[in-house]
Amino acid sequence: MTAPVTTSVSTSVEGGSNELSAAQLIERHRATLDRALEVIRSREYWSPHPEHPKAYGEESGAAGSLSAGQGQAAFDALRGSRFEIDGQPGQSGPEGGWAATEVSPYGLEMGIEYPRPDLDVLLPAMREAMPAWREAGPEVRAAVCLEILARISARTHEFAHAVMHTSGQAFMMAFQAGGPHAQDRGMEAVAYAYEEQVRTPGSAEWSKPQGKRDPLNLSKHFTPVGRGISLLIGCNTFPTWNGYPGFFASLATGNPVLVKPHPRAVLPLALTVRVAREVLAEAGFESNLVALAAERDGEGIAKELAVRPEIRIIDYTGSTAFGDWLESNAHQARVFTEKAGVNTVIIDSTDDYKGMLGNLAFSLSLYSGQMCTTPQNLLIPRGGITTDAGEKSYDEVAADLATAVGKLLGDDARANALLGAIVNQQVRERVESAASLGEVALPSRSVEHPDFPGATVRTPVIVKLESAEPEAESVCFSEFFGPVSFAVAVDSAADAVAVLRRTVREKGAMTVGAYTTSPEVERLIEDACLDECAQLSLNLTGGVYVNQTAAFSDFHGSGGNPAANSALCDGAFVSDRFRTVQVRRPA
Amino acid sequence: MTAPVTTSVSTSVEGGSNELSAAQLIERHRATLDRALEVIRSREYWSPHPEHPKAYGEESGAAGSLSAGQGQAAFDALRGSRFEIDGQPGQSGPEGGWAATEVSPYGLEMGIEYPRPDLDVLLPAMREAMPAWREAGPEVRAAVCLEILARISARTHEFAHAVMHTSGQAFMMAFQAGGPHAQDRGMEAVAYAYEEQVRTPGSAEWSKPQGKRDPLNLSKHFTPVGRGISLLIGCNTFPTWNGYPGFFASLATGNPVLVKPHPRAVLPLALTVRVAREVLAEAGFESNLVALAAERDGEGIAKELAVRPEIRIIDYTGSTAFGDWLESNAHQARVFTEKAGVNTVIIDSTDDYKGMLGNLAFSLSLYSGQMCTTPQNLLIPRGGITTDAGEKSYDEVAADLATAVGKLLGDDARANALLGAIVNQQVRERVESAASLGEVALPSRSVEHPDFPGATVRTPVIVKLESAEPEAESVCFSEFFGPVSFAVAVDSAADAVAVLRRTVREKGAMTVGAYTTSPEVERLIEDACLDECAQLSLNLTGGVYVNQTAAFSDFHGSGGNPAANSALCDGAFVSDRFRTVQVRRPA
Repeated sequence: MTAPVTTSVSTSVEGGSNELSAAQLIERHRATLDRALEVIRSREYWSPHPEHPKAYGEESGAAGSLSAGQGQAAFDALRGSRFEIDGQPGQSGPEGGWAATEVSPYGLEMGIEYPRPDLDVLLPAMREAMPAWREAGPEVRAAVCLEILARISARTHEFAHAVMHTSGQAFMMAFQAGGPHAQDRGMEAVAYAYEEQVRTPGSAEWSKPQGKRDPLNLSKHFTPVGRGISLLIGCNTFPTWNGYPGFFASLATGNPVLVKPHPRAVLPLALTVRVAREVLAEAGFESNLVALAAERDGEGIAKELAVRPEIRIIDYTGSTAFGDWLESNAHQARVFTEKAGVNTVIIDSTDDYKGMLGNLAFSLSLYSGQMCTTPQNLLIPRGGITTDAGEKSYDEVAADLATAVGKLLGDDARANALLGAIVNQQVRERVESAASLGEVALPSRSVEHPDFPGATVRTPVIVKLESAEPEAESVCFSEFFGPVSFAVAVDSAADAVAVLRRTVREKGAMTVGAYTTSPEVERLIEDACLDECAQLSLNLTGGVYVNQTAAFSDFHGSGGNPAANSALCDGAFVSDRFRTVQVRRPA
Repeated sequence: MTAPVTTSVSTSVEGGSNELSAAQLIERHRATLDRALEVIRSREYWSPHPEHPKAYGEESGAAGSLSAGQGQAAFDALRGSRFEIDGQPGQSGPEGGWAATEVSPYGLEMGIEYPRPDLDVLLPAMREAMPAWREAGPEVRAAVCLEILARISARTHEFAHAVMHTSGQAFMMAFQAGGPHAQDRGMEAVAYAYEEQVRTPGSAEWSKPQGKRDPLNLSKHFTPVGRGISLLIGCNTFPTWNGYPGFFASLATGNPVLVKPHPRAVLPLALTVRVAREVLAEAGFESNLVALAAERDGEGIAKELAVRPEIRIIDYTGSTAFGDWLESNAHQARVFTEKAGVNTVIIDSTDDYKGMLGNLAFSLSLYSGQMCTTPQNLLIPRGGITTDAGEKSYDEVAADLATAVGKLLGDDARANALLGAIVNQQVRERVESAASLGEVALPSRSVEHPDFPGATVRTPVIVKLESAEPEAESVCFSEFFGPVSFAVAVDSAADAVAVLRRTVREKGAMTVGAYTTSPEVERLIEDACLDECAQLSLNLTGGVYVNQTAAFSDFHGSGGNPAANSALCDGAFVSDRFRTVQVRRPA
């Protein structure tokens, strides 16, 4: 243990000069860690981070957390200023500087400058911080990580605005997905990392019998050792939710983490870095175990960083092209990717037609479909489907779904609360040109945002395709990220399954959904998902949606099809981030 | 469960038409699996496979196992014949054929022809076998793997000859390392694989509170799913010991395994494939879950196989050049490599000079140093060392070590029993030219083998180098696989540690050894090994050697330096061989 024994403890979100002993941190967080360890094995429901904004205190903030007003004020204070990270090396090096690249999808001026460090100065400093962090051991590292998460949780209102104005998510989604849900995923990763490291004991006595001679006796010591600097390449749409698993898995397993955020979504991860450095310093470790590397527009430093010898782990969420490039070129690192896929829903039959339409309408609308888990291809038999509301033709299903989406988003206030803003120009162009791809079942419409007139808000477009192949092949087997989906006519349920298999195998899928009342069809779909390694949600008609997964219970992605090479979170996501070094001596 | 319920059970090494139910297999092997699961967590000594040849029955074989004579006879019967693998597809395809490439390092005529299947026929058949194997579940798969190991164990005498006459190991080493030790490593991998798959339950009920509304309820099912066909690229020197971990880890996690042996060491793995197919068939599974692909001289089918889309996992032991190639090119697969390294022993001081010399002499001599774990660079302060036998100069240490090796191998019978045969021409040339690299402390000598006059047997050569760098840099930082080691003069213990660090970082190391009575020096060496991720053995003077590791307790390699990207065996070695597919439904 290298963490100093001290007496003062801070739970204040202000942080500062307080110090935290290892024992204090463990006492504070051990019960939570133990509960997390139980739940990743039981997969029951659990979350230590409340979803409702009111839980964080309406006025002055509950239990040291920022209230809604304080969170808004904290966010406002950050805008138009330089985001200093105290003590982060590399600012004064020949390559050091500042970068301001964010543009709120809501049109709000951001104007925040972030550190763009000289990597030749920063990386050695990060590497030097490793030995003391290694010596701290798995339990102290886990406790430090949980303290970081607790401080982030206390500032959820501030993070919500940061996520909203970088990703374009509506406020409530930014609050929940960018706050408690992301924190849950981070804690899940800490639990997996801890469990993996303590599978091997710290020491063991080994005694091998030698018949009549004395046994051979050895004392063995085992130490989990981080691989080296871990690089987090952040994404635009879910900077914290997609970033926290890799960030905390690497930190908890003994690795420094260099955060390279998406140029359009720096703030949520910059705040994370600042909190992490504050906690690390208070706990007596080098704050340079966590650092931020922002970049100027068009620099593409991820490509340079990814192949540096100091970088031994990479976490990436983003385009398939760059993910494939990383997998093919960053040989010195263990690369974890989440790329793009084409998500399918098979609509074969249902005993709750209204529930199905409502559920799908929500899935297609949430965050304007800008999720890696949003369904794209809705496969519907051209002969129609059986439902509790009678037989429905393919045209009727497409029309009824269009009506359901239209109703869900008919009210502009509700539409804004659900859709959020279009994150970039490419998505907007994709929505606007989708109508040319086929018969439009539901046109996209533009929605005004009462508070942010600069926001681009669009409802989903649904396009009918007469078949999946061969005519519509280039459409069906390409990803249309954003609020674009296709009602695809197929010959039969079996044909739908064949299209599903091909889609997952060739393009990958983060999610598969299906509606069927037939055990035979259900079995066909399940087998396809098992064979092609895709996560399946069946007959969702209520308040759970195919595009949402819950930490501690659901796996996000499978890691076994082209959409991602890893899953959140499992043993494989953490086990290769460290190695176990053994020292043996005669006993 | 797809394995049929049957009544007859066979433990006979003859195998044949018997059938095994899943329940029978589990009953037979569950206790062993449970013990293995305990020991991989306690890291205490354990082995279910006896090391002594007599344990297998001297006359007719104990408990269904082959006696020494029966093992010899079984091996003899294989020579000069075609090694048929019943029912393995691809022999009659346009590319199908036979290959005979083995040459015993002892000069014994092998003349065995092995299947060289048409891969376009074989691979689809292997892929088709996956779903039923997946449905069997982790426990049945583990039990089937343990049954395979039990049948291999019963034939250890036969395997010993097969390993001896392909690797060149002496009989006793071939028996132990190729038999029980390899089987231990295989079982260890099965235990890790089982534990990893059952971390997630088969099913879970998830209930999320919704305040005053009804909770959201889902039923979730989780299935471990193999990644796809696993390719084992075997090595010449330890076909079973280095092959079994990957073989069993992949099979136990639901993957078919295609075995591509080294052209000079086919038989041990061909026997393994045959036993595995026999057990799989008896247990009601497709025997094509395991197959053999031999190749003709110079074909290099590993390179072709490694990038085929059907191959999703690769296990490789061999040269750094091809290991690096695999890591850089087989992007569609998860690649586990053990390559080459430069192993160091630091000799700083000792309180058992005689024990140290004897221990090192044995390590340098065992299997003519043809182990990835054999020490190469012995770093000795040029000012001498402190020992219980007084101060010893650098020259004295080198001379005394030479004397110790000379004494150990002075008797030809003992020399043959320890050295085995030189595995190939390249190693022989390396030994013969080593004398030109510096002053020779111990020349290599040629030993006649009384039973096998064709065997090339060579004692180790020890060459003195006046410094590690810069003059001798190209020698010190290159691997000299075989019985070649260097007594390298260094300035001090601190200098030795610096050379060690550089060696591990740049060239990798499977093992590091050190002798010191100084706590300060010990700490320096430990820190270096933790920083550079190398496995350290301190002050070995008795019957445990730096180049030997024990399954269930020792990690073989660290996976964190250039010598290997994985370790035998840990969570990371198994966790990414399967993915967990989830199906969720409203409860």
